[in-house]
Amino acid sequence: MMRNILIIGIGAGNPDHMTVQAIEALNRADVLFMPDKGTEKAALQQLRRRICDRFIRNPDYRTVTVAIPQRAPAGSDYRGSVDDWHARIAASYQRLFSEELAEGQCGALLVWGDPALYDSTLRIVERIRASGFALDYEVIPGISSVQVLAARHRIALNRIGEPVLITTGRKLADGFPADQDSVVVMLDGDQTFRHVASAELDIYWGAYLGTPDELLISGRLTEVMAEIEATRAQARQRHGWIMDVYLLRRNRPA
Amino acid sequence: MMRNILIIGIGAGNPDHMTVQAIEALNRADVLFMPDKGTEKAALQQLRRRICDRFIRNPDYRTVTVAIPQRAPAGSDYRGSVDDWHARIAASYQRLFSEELAEGQCGALLVWGDPALYDSTLRIVERIRASGFALDYEVIPGISSVQVLAARHRIALNRIGEPVLITTGRKLADGFPADQDSVVVMLDGDQTFRHVASAELDIYWGAYLGTPDELLISGRLTEVMAEIEATRAQARQRHGWIMDVYLLRRNRPA
Repeated sequence: MMRNILIIGIGAGNPDHMTVQAIEALNRADVLFMPDKGTEKAALQQLRRRICDRFIRNPDYRTVTVAIPQRAPAGSDYRGSVDDWHARIAASYQRLFSEELAEGQCGALLVWGDPALYDSTLRIVERIRASGFALDYEVIPGISSVQVLAARHRIALNRIGEPVLITTGRKLADGFPADQDSVVVMLDGDQTFRHVASAELDIYWGAYLGTPDELLISGRLTEVMAEIEATRAQARQRHGWIMDVYLLRRNRPA
Repeated sequence: MMRNILIIGIGAGNPDHMTVQAIEALNRADVLFMPDKGTEKAALQQLRRRICDRFIRNPDYRTVTVAIPQRAPAGSDYRGSVDDWHARIAASYQRLFSEELAEGQCGALLVWGDPALYDSTLRIVERIRASGFALDYEVIPGISSVQVLAARHRIALNRIGEPVLITTGRKLADGFPADQDSVVVMLDGDQTFRHVASAELDIYWGAYLGTPDELLISGRLTEVMAEIEATRAQARQRHGWIMDVYLLRRNRPA
């Protein structure tokens, strides 16, 4: 009788992104483990609660809040700093799984977007299991912000027969990859598109995707980047936080 | 009063991949336009009908079958051949939109996976609109086979902070990209992984993802490629068709 953990992708912000599979998984959970990442993401916590209120039919589920430790500044060792941070998060979760779930019970972790893309939940659960704590786990895919970006701009991510690179702001800082055509940039708190500004690139930008606050701007990068910067700064100030993602694409095939 | 076209991602094979948004969109449609690509994909047509039967509450919707012309062999001009093929498909759809939808009515096109990834529906609808035919359209994202592959193997697509390249079998034939870490390969009818065989790569392979016939194999590429080839050949013979996708990843960071 192992504890069972469901890692559930809950979509990018619109509760209607929930799949039938995710709704059913939510309803199998005895306990929902909710991360508390501090005040900045209060709006997301509220949204997550609204998803639970709307879709959970089982009135007996419990919610347990998980305090997420702060990540130390990365310095020169990005991977090492993330690894240490994950170890501390895993220890928090393991203690709560052990205290809050009886053997044979089922816990759920709700993940924004898709658990397969730039999310650490899978690694944290795998780490707990690797440490010898008996648990089984299951992954439910969810609509990611990348997909909502494409849907709302009504574009394909790839050009016909061409690849798509999904990368981070940190990586884009090295320059727009010479051999790529379409590049999706996630986790960019720094508007790194400014550093690859070129009239040969188009940008499709979106923030708060799927929510009523959604913002969309697209066009030739050099022509719209100032507008994106200004819009982003204003929105960030108004909401106290921002989540954005963008696609950069050569306007002539490479 | 324009005609409105809904391009709806319906997931990768499991009807439970349907999102609430996709179910609501299905129920707004007066007419569903269903492609008929010949006998080979009869199983997928059946699955699509099951999705409609299960989720559509509006009993008055109509289904119209769209004959999809064959694509001419690509020869040396892949993009040109696809372009010509899309033009012929667009002409078929445009005729049917005009004949089967009254002004102000709503038609739906159901897309396996996500309309943003290696699917031509968006380009075809955009082409019809660009030709001067008055229509509006909306895109609903769906769970793609790439996401189901990751969920079923319980892996992230990216390594921590590293990019993911999504590409095609045709492109992979040029070799595993020297500067990449994780490469998802779609549209590969040719088991191109054989041509990049290396003990430094791991493979996560899946076929018929999300369906009861799902197949999953993973391991060091050189150790499992023969098993994947044999499994794939047998399954293809038994079902008469196969859809598969895989992730290749360096087992040591680049």
